[in-house]
Amino acid sequence: MAETKKISLVVSEGTFDKAMMSMMMANTAASMGMEVHVFFTFFGLNLLKKGQNPKLPGMYRLFTGVFSKRMANVGIGDFSSQLKMALDLGVNVYGCSTTMDLMRITKEQMVDGVKVLGAAGFLNIAADSDVQLFVG
Amino acid sequence: MAETKKISLVVSEGTFDKAMMSMMMANTAASMGMEVHVFFTFFGLNLLKKGQNPKLPGMYRLFTGVFSKRMANVGIGDFSSQLKMALDLGVNVYGCSTTMDLMRITKEQMVDGVKVLGAAGFLNIAADSDVQLFVG
Amino acid sequence: MAETKKISLVVSEGTFDKAMMSMMMANTAASMGMEVHVFFTFFGLNLLKKGQNPKLPGMYRLFTGVFSKRMANVGIGDFSSQLKMALDLGVNVYGCSTTMDLMRITKEQMVDGVKVLGAAGFLNIAADSDVQLFVG
Repeated sequence: MAETKKISLVVSEGTFDKAMMSMMMANTAASMGMEVHVFFTFFGLNLLKKGQNPKLPGMYRLFTGVFSKRMANVGIGDFSSQLKMALDLGVNVYGCSTTMDLMRITKEQMVDGVKVLGAAGFLNIAADSDVQLFVG
Repeated sequence: MAETKKISLVVSEGTFDKAMMSMMMANTAASMGMEVHVFFTFFGLNLLKKGQNPKLPGMYRLFTGVFSKRMANVGIGDFSSQLKMALDLGVNVYGCSTTMDLMRITKEQMVDGVKVLGAAGFLNIAADSDVQLFVG
Repeated sequence: MAETKKISLVVSEGTFDKAMMSMMMANTAASMGMEVHVFFTFFGLNLLKKGQNPKLPGMYRLFTGVFSKRMANVGIGDFSSQLKMALDLGVNVYGCSTTMDLMRITKEQMVDGVKVLGAAGFLNIAADSDVQLFVG
């Protein structure tokens, strides 16, 4: 058997598209048996606060509902359910410690199961991964 | 001789800058003898519809023409010609199957030569690549 | 001892968030003993001109000052000082030669110590790196 593949993702934007893509990639990878790490930093960190409902960026903002409905129609749940699925599948979800300081976000404000990690810790994981993608 | 290097790109935004960079990187890599895979997903999928002419994002939109002219002056053709060149050079160009469903885009609407691929298929290719870049 | 890890970053956007993240990642990696390469292309190239002071994107623009102050409070200097630190730490900072032509930016306009590199040169470096991230 092949060794377990390892994938590391970075999410630095807090918009619907980047949020959903990172979770759909993470959950697909986890379902394929990969070891998955997702590092939320800068504006991306907001996504880890409880009850987030991200919107599409700029002029697309108003189309978020349409997109969400179409996604639901093909069986893709909203961001919160995707994040919950990720944690249930064993995906490692990290909040960036420096961004937590900057944005004054505490561990208690974040979804249960999220870990805290610094840039150095993430780079060590990434350097040992087969796939690294900075989703945006 | 060294083994063939393999590069995988993701394009999730439909703007001129991300469109052009992905194609210029893909075509440069292909010209260097690399095996190239480009996966168009989310808003990026629109770029694969026939006759696309992407624009710069936000307030830069009006400068798209200036950029295009300067590019033409240094021998860089527009997006459609870059995409055609990529396909001619043997670059593997994929439309994301989930996004096709979501945005109701059919294979017939897309440029000839584009393949259809799911996230799992792309992750398998990426995990076996020397370079992976999520262009935006 | 383990071999030296190598990391390659691409910066194609000129906003505060992407600028700061690329430099913070680069400087963290350099401090960890990694060999670091950062390629500035498209709008990202503007960041290499002397005396740049990037702003947050879109509607966040007005919050750049607040962010900068909070960063200063936790010991993170502004972009110019981060870039200087990178060069001092031996980070390889490249301006994209094609973009220099397109945007009519000369080597003299750029910060001292910046090198000029084409896409092919960068792809060769990336293909030999342990981590590759397209920061945005």
